[in-house]
Amino acid sequence: MDVAKFSEGTCPVARGLAKVGDAWSMLILRDASLGLTRYDQFRASLGIAPNILSRRLKALTEAGLLEKRRYSQRPPRDEYVLTEAGRDFLPVLHVLGEWGRRHHGAGGVSRLVDAATGKEVRPLVVDAATGRPIGELPVKLVPPEEGEAKRIWVLE
Amino acid sequence: MDVAKFSEGTCPVARGLAKVGDAWSMLILRDASLGLTRYDQFRASLGIAPNILSRRLKALTEAGLLEKRRYSQRPPRDEYVLTEAGRDFLPVLHVLGEWGRRHHGAGGVSRLVDAATGKEVRPLVVDAATGRPIGELPVKLVPPEEGEAKRIWVLE
Repeated sequence: MDVAKFSEGTCPVARGLAKVGDAWSMLILRDASLGLTRYDQFRASLGIAPNILSRRLKALTEAGLLEKRRYSQRPPRDEYVLTEAGRDFLPVLHVLGEWGRRHHGAGGVSRLVDAATGKEVRPLVVDAATGRPIGELPVKLVPPEEGEAKRIWVLE
Repeated sequence: MDVAKFSEGTCPVARGLAKVGDAWSMLILRDASLGLTRYDQFRASLGIAPNILSRRLKALTEAGLLEKRRYSQRPPRDEYVLTEAGRDFLPVLHVLGEWGRRHHGAGGVSRLVDAATGKEVRPLVVDAATGRPIGELPVKLVPPEEGEAKRIWVLE
């Protein structure tokens, strides 16, 4: 895709995808959230080709989702940890995982639980102000300029 | 990526990504939610190469997110509409868009508003049972088999 074009448009979804718009990047973020930090760990977890992993780690670092930290001087070795923006992306993965569980969970998939209580956690997207599920709201998109909404998000 | 491998694993995020794991597919779903249904509409909206668009529409249809409907017999023409599973994916895009707005919204991006009240809508991911924001919960992943959690999702 034309990353520059989508980065500069007014659609926030496209802007997000310009930074994290492929499955490998999202799986790297998932693994980082599970505590993986090193190249070899990501490689073993994902079975990803070395050149693709290097490229994705670089892109995620440049996009501000991962931070590269040197953990060994001799030999020089770096690790990758989630930044605040990277951690802020994790709810996207939780909602994606909930969709995967609901629609393609046959045979059993992992479940999210509250680490304190052990109770199952079901990610749900709501409007922060009212608590109403987004899927039940008739919402529309308003362009950044003053004026009328250009398009309708059809949600039901 | 190895779609078959990720489809069969126990990670629901990977299973979701095996179905909708690239930026074009997500942008097609975005456009479908905005009311676009026809090949030429998607093509004009996305500036996407014809062969890529055809492949993505076919994959999204086979994955059960879009349904192909014939709207003209002579000449034969099809349109693509969101299925229930496709509409159920839209909150993923809303959360992704909210992340894009928050971290890469410089210069202005579109905003989501309640079509009834005109008030801005801020997508937030919460636990459906308790209403607590997922980002504030210490959560862990439990494998589908009985037993201990394998890994921890580090969220804060």
